[in-house]
Amino acid sequence: MTEKTKLITPRLPRGFEDRSPGEIAAVGAMIDKIKAVYERYGFDPVETPLFEYTETLGKFLPDTDRPNAGVFSLQDDDEQWMSLRYDLTAPLARYFAENFETLPKPYRSYRQGYVFRNEKPGPGRFRQFLQFDADTVGAPGPEADAEMCMMMADVMDALGLAGKYVVRVNNRKVLDGVLEAAGVTSEEQKLTVLRAVDKLDKFGAEGVKLLLGAGRKDESGDFTKGAGLSDSQAAVVLDYVGGKPPADNEGVAELAAMQSLFDAAGYGPDRIKIDPSVVRGLEYYTGPVFEIELTFKVQNEKGQDVVFGSVGGGGRYDGLVSRFRREPVPATGFSIGVSRLANALKLTGNLGATEPAGPVVVLVMDKAETARYQAMVSELRQAGIRTEMFLGQTKNFGKQVAYADKRNAPAVIIEGSQEREQGILQVKDLIAGKQAAQAITDNAEWKAARPGQFEIKREDLVSAVKKLLSEQ
Amino acid sequence: MTEKTKLITPRLPRGFEDRSPGEIAAVGAMIDKIKAVYERYGFDPVETPLFEYTETLGKFLPDTDRPNAGVFSLQDDDEQWMSLRYDLTAPLARYFAENFETLPKPYRSYRQGYVFRNEKPGPGRFRQFLQFDADTVGAPGPEADAEMCMMMADVMDALGLAGKYVVRVNNRKVLDGVLEAAGVTSEEQKLTVLRAVDKLDKFGAEGVKLLLGAGRKDESGDFTKGAGLSDSQAAVVLDYVGGKPPADNEGVAELAAMQSLFDAAGYGPDRIKIDPSVVRGLEYYTGPVFEIELTFKVQNEKGQDVVFGSVGGGGRYDGLVSRFRREPVPATGFSIGVSRLANALKLTGNLGATEPAGPVVVLVMDKAETARYQAMVSELRQAGIRTEMFLGQTKNFGKQVAYADKRNAPAVIIEGSQEREQGILQVKDLIAGKQAAQAITDNAEWKAARPGQFEIKREDLVSAVKKLLSEQ
Repeated sequence: MTEKTKLITPRLPRGFEDRSPGEIAAVGAMIDKIKAVYERYGFDPVETPLFEYTETLGKFLPDTDRPNAGVFSLQDDDEQWMSLRYDLTAPLARYFAENFETLPKPYRSYRQGYVFRNEKPGPGRFRQFLQFDADTVGAPGPEADAEMCMMMADVMDALGLAGKYVVRVNNRKVLDGVLEAAGVTSEEQKLTVLRAVDKLDKFGAEGVKLLLGAGRKDESGDFTKGAGLSDSQAAVVLDYVGGKPPADNEGVAELAAMQSLFDAAGYGPDRIKIDPSVVRGLEYYTGPVFEIELTFKVQNEKGQDVVFGSVGGGGRYDGLVSRFRREPVPATGFSIGVSRLANALKLTGNLGATEPAGPVVVLVMDKAETARYQAMVSELRQAGIRTEMFLGQTKNFGKQVAYADKRNAPAVIIEGSQEREQGILQVKDLIAGKQAAQAITDNAEWKAARPGQFEIKREDLVSAVKKLLSEQ
Repeated sequence: MTEKTKLITPRLPRGFEDRSPGEIAAVGAMIDKIKAVYERYGFDPVETPLFEYTETLGKFLPDTDRPNAGVFSLQDDDEQWMSLRYDLTAPLARYFAENFETLPKPYRSYRQGYVFRNEKPGPGRFRQFLQFDADTVGAPGPEADAEMCMMMADVMDALGLAGKYVVRVNNRKVLDGVLEAAGVTSEEQKLTVLRAVDKLDKFGAEGVKLLLGAGRKDESGDFTKGAGLSDSQAAVVLDYVGGKPPADNEGVAELAAMQSLFDAAGYGPDRIKIDPSVVRGLEYYTGPVFEIELTFKVQNEKGQDVVFGSVGGGGRYDGLVSRFRREPVPATGFSIGVSRLANALKLTGNLGATEPAGPVVVLVMDKAETARYQAMVSELRQAGIRTEMFLGQTKNFGKQVAYADKRNAPAVIIEGSQEREQGILQVKDLIAGKQAAQAITDNAEWKAARPGQFEIKREDLVSAVKKLLSEQ
């Protein structure tokens, strides 16, 4: 009857990750700094659930027009399809439309949370990841877009990235004007042209020219098919990329209005810059688009120096809320990729401490005296000192100290029978001990010296530990 | 061709909720206080993804033995079933087993996050909710269980609930001993007996007796079927409930050991109390079980005074990690229901401020001068003052002030053409204005007095607003 049950292999689902204490603390500190900027700008937090009805999310996921591709969906017991949100914008549109009567208009909000992509996972590509968004709904003018750009610049400064970023700004109406002037009409060709423009930084004007025409072969011999524009069509696009915006264009006027606000508020082109090559992928943008580029160099997987690149972006999306309401509801917003930004902070030394300080560990030298050790632990905790009693099965002194070392403990507290009789405790300073141990090469010498270990009276426990921690 | 598209109704999925700024801020502050206690006890944060493989979660959901009942599950494109986690314990077991070689042992961790139940939603019953757990894995002794209880008591004190709670403790081995002594062998009958014992607080010894026997009819006439014990069987259970624990029982010895630790650390029965009626529902508990009861009275939906009741609980579950590994892996843990605890704090006035302070609003009196208003806004923000420019479509002064009121703005800043020429600004103190308005009943009088409005020089903007905010 006692058949051995089969063991289950413990494993993370494909494309998901666990987060360590250091990462949680560092990302939490980063998010607090971003929040402080958002709140100073008048943005309020809001949070929506992880599920939405699939029809609410619509078909706005990048590069797809099937409602469920790329999304985790399931059918509820009342037959309705629900999906895990793939971004924080579509749920905001639902929230704003559902609470239209009571929300202030314009409505500024920020949201952080997990989003999900039902995609093939890869290195650094996860199926659940954190986003941090800010949006203004109900504000039609470029002032709201300009505010987004300035807020993002302030966020980068608050994170210690001053001088290492630029917020680049463009306008979809300008791009549309260029496409029209060039006579590009098919949706597919439009996308290929926009992708080519997007590559200006990477391949230069010559590379863009090839991508606008027949195509471009890279160093490895891989060929990217081009948009197939005629030379005269390509010339229109290249003129634009070279700095000649289309005349009489609404988008150009909006960019000028934004620039006047940047000037008035003192944001120079080192921080916010209008740049004709900014495209942004999502189909739903209808006006200004922007992205934060980190400009410092990192090495890519081939060992080449490349700029770190984008850590977030956004733009105006006047159509998204309108799916729920007859009247037009203008909106503009910004999304930060939290992991990618945290990685940038790590690389630039701005992420802060990543490992929490270890606890003082009270060793259990004698199981029958556990209550005595518990009393010490509670005294220290009540004094605000992070403390543990050793709770493992071993009585071995060395193994208990090894546990304390693994926990980065600053000290262990020892009370054997001898100490108990004398009313004293041994305090082993693990940090001084490690330093001294590096200087002592002989094992016998080390044992005799017992570096970093000292005696205290039992009643001095709290004061002695406090003194030790302040000195370390 | 311009067929009108059908509007989508914006609506939350059934059983899910949006969270407001006030709730987010209050729960965030509560969680920070809990974290501080957990960290003082040596617990480290960890976070697992929202999905696990369904086989990892197992069949440990309360009151069910089907793997998928009550759980949101979907099949991945490689045919494997994944489920959204229904608690934070099963994922911890997977995490510990998967990282067994590198984690310190014993391993203390805390985790917060959303969990999901695929159940019929009802008032106050949501399908996504926050849990906040702490667990110690790899510690076999009752010291680890006692630590859980003391930590929960400290958490309640830290939240301002001193004198309003008791942590009640029991042991499944004691209950099993009683069932054995009473000769109860069928699993179903065991559960019915435990449920009857659990009702001691509610129905008293007489009520429990009925539920152990044929059954009990309540005031409304509803009948609850009993466990069907004989009188002599019921007597054994009632003796236990009346305070006579079974002799020679391992669980009784463990409770005694825990009590000696509570005594040593100074936790009296007003804070932690051994109580024979504590049962806890989950099947996987194997030793000590505990729960936090809030003892203050609230009114139930019928207007009757009842104690607030449980806001969290836990116990020892030595079997959960063992599903992944041959050797025994003891574990004990505790889970707090975040919304329910937040509600308790609200009722006792311990939740803190729930509405974020409103921003100063700079009105847009003249669209052509937007850059001037933007400069004011940026000056105030750079001085750390929460500020907005009015970004709505209306030019109407009253509507802009109404927006500021809705945002709980402390003040609005006004620069019309006259002020611009004179180099001055009008500051409208909305808080003083509201107070004055209450005293003035005549509309004409109000208009003449313009309560709370005053003039400042343009260059004094930051200092004048700072002064006003500090005085409010």
